[in-house]
Amino acid sequence: MKTATVKIHEKETVAVITDDEQVVDITAAALKSASAYQVPDSMIQAAADGERFWEEAGRLTEWVLDNNHSDCLYPLEEVTLCAPVPVPHKNIMCAGKNYKDHAVEMGSETDIPDDPIIFTKAPTTVIGPGEEINPHPDVTNEVDYEGEIAVIIGKGGTGIPKEQAADHVFGYTLANDVTARDLQKRHNQFFLGKSMDTFCPMGPWIVNQEDIEGKDVKLETYVNGERRQQAAMSQMIFSVYDLIEIISRAITLQPGDIIATGTPAGVGKAFDPPRLLQPGDEVVVTADGIGRLTNLVK
Amino acid sequence: MKTATVKIHEKETVAVITDDEQVVDITAAALKSASAYQVPDSMIQAAADGERFWEEAGRLTEWVLDNNHSDCLYPLEEVTLCAPVPVPHKNIMCAGKNYKDHAVEMGSETDIPDDPIIFTKAPTTVIGPGEEINPHPDVTNEVDYEGEIAVIIGKGGTGIPKEQAADHVFGYTLANDVTARDLQKRHNQFFLGKSMDTFCPMGPWIVNQEDIEGKDVKLETYVNGERRQQAAMSQMIFSVYDLIEIISRAITLQPGDIIATGTPAGVGKAFDPPRLLQPGDEVVVTADGIGRLTNLVK
Repeated sequence: MKTATVKIHEKETVAVITDDEQVVDITAAALKSASAYQVPDSMIQAAADGERFWEEAGRLTEWVLDNNHSDCLYPLEEVTLCAPVPVPHKNIMCAGKNYKDHAVEMGSETDIPDDPIIFTKAPTTVIGPGEEINPHPDVTNEVDYEGEIAVIIGKGGTGIPKEQAADHVFGYTLANDVTARDLQKRHNQFFLGKSMDTFCPMGPWIVNQEDIEGKDVKLETYVNGERRQQAAMSQMIFSVYDLIEIISRAITLQPGDIIATGTPAGVGKAFDPPRLLQPGDEVVVTADGIGRLTNLVK
Repeated sequence: MKTATVKIHEKETVAVITDDEQVVDITAAALKSASAYQVPDSMIQAAADGERFWEEAGRLTEWVLDNNHSDCLYPLEEVTLCAPVPVPHKNIMCAGKNYKDHAVEMGSETDIPDDPIIFTKAPTTVIGPGEEINPHPDVTNEVDYEGEIAVIIGKGGTGIPKEQAADHVFGYTLANDVTARDLQKRHNQFFLGKSMDTFCPMGPWIVNQEDIEGKDVKLETYVNGERRQQAAMSQMIFSVYDLIEIISRAITLQPGDIIATGTPAGVGKAFDPPRLLQPGDEVVVTADGIGRLTNLVK
C-alpha cells in the first residue's frame, strides 16, 4: 500500500495511491462515509498514527473503489505529487558510506566504516518528484547524485533493539542525497555540502513496511537514462534495523523522522574523470516495489 | 531587552524578563491593554516577527510596569524557565573548532580550520536551564561540556552578506554543546556523539541583537565552580556574521533557526588526564550581558 502527500485543488493532503496509480482522497472519503477516523492532515501525523493509519486508509480506499465514488478519485496525472514529508520537523539523518563498494570508490578499503557514519541534511533541502535541483553554480562546481532508500519512522522510541525495529518503520521512500563534493570536503563535516536548498529530492510516495518486509529491494540511479548506480538493500553494511538500533540508543526517534540509508557505488565523483551533474541533467532514482523519483537539474 | 519561554501555571508562553528579573506575561498584558498586536505563542513565531516583536514586547512591558499591573508580573523564581526555543523546527547548526586555542587543544595547529566546520544536533537534545543532562552511561564513557554563545535567527534569507547579517539576528542565548567524545570519534561525523537526548542545554533567555551589537561578550564555563573555559566573542575564527554569510550562501535561513557558534579551549577531553563530566557535576555557562545557564549531570 502507498501513501503520498499530494496537492489536490491547490491544497496539500495525505492520499492513497492505488496499484493502478489512481489517487484516493481519503480525507474526502472519510467525510463522505462519516468515518470515525480523523484522517491526518500531514504525513508526520499519519506516521504518528502508524499501523492505525494504514488500516483506516486501506478501509477508506476500499470503500471508494467498491462504491465507485469518483469524486474521491483522481488520475495520478491530475494531482501534484509533493515530497512525502514536505517539511520535515528536523533534519534528515543520513548514513554515509553504507555500501562497501561506495566506501571504497570514495577512498579505499580502509574507508569501510566499522560504525555507521551519520550526518544530516536541513529540512529546507526537500523537494518533491519533478521539482528542479538548483545546482547553486555560485557556490559549488561539483554537484553529485546519490540515490538512496529512505525510511520514515512511525512509532517513536529510544533504545529500540533491531529485532523490534520493524515495528517502528512507517514505510519506505526514495531520496536523492544531492551533494556538493567540493563543500563536503572543504568544510570537513558533511552538513554544508549536503544541505543546499533543493538537495534532497524525495518521493514519489511511501510504501508501507509490510510490503517491503523480507524483500531484497533493488535500488538503481539513472542519469540521462544511463544506469550509474545499482545495489540491493541486502548489500548495506548497516541494515535499516541496525541503523534504527544504533541511532536510537541515546536519541529518541519520533514519528515522521527520516533516515536516508546510504548510497551504493557509482556516484559521479568516483568516475575518472568525474561525471558530475550538469544543468539539464535528468536523475532518476528507482526501486522495484517502491517507485521512481525523477528530477531535473535546473 | 530579554525574552524567554517560561511556564506560567503549567502553560508555556513567551515572556519578557526585566532588568531586575521580573517576568512580564506579555500575552496577558496584550489582552488586558487591548493591544492590536497578537503576541506570538511560540519563540519561533516571535523570531519571525523579529524587530516588531521586540518593539511590541517593550511597549507592553512598559505598560505593565508603569501601571503596576501586578497580575501580569511574576518573580523569576515563581516561573519555570524553559529553553528559549523548546522544540526547534530543525537541527541546531553548530560551528566546530571556531576558536584557535580549542582547535589546537583537540589536535594541533593544522586543525585550525580555513573554512567553518558545521555539524548539527537533533532538536531532541534541547533542555532548559536547571534541567538534568543524561550522561547515557550505557552508551558513552566520555561526556564533555562545551560552553557556547548561540544565535537565534530572526528574519530569514538566503545569500545574506555579512554586512547585513545583523539584520537577521533575533538575539543571543547560551548553549552547552554536550558531547560524547568516544562516539564523536568512532562515528566519524559528529552527529551521533552530539545528539543524545538532553545534550543541548540552552538558555536562560534571549537577549536582543541591539544589546549585544558592538560588545565583545566574554564567555565562561564553570564545572563545579571551577572555571574551565573563557574567551571573548572577538576570538572566534568565524564571527557570527561570517557564519550567517557562509551558511546562507546556499541554505535558506529561517526565523527561529539556531546557530551555536563554537566553544573555546578548556574542554574536559583536552586535559591530561581528561576531566570529563561525572554524575552530579554542575556545569555553568555564563556570559556578561547574556546570562547564566546552569545544569547538573544526572
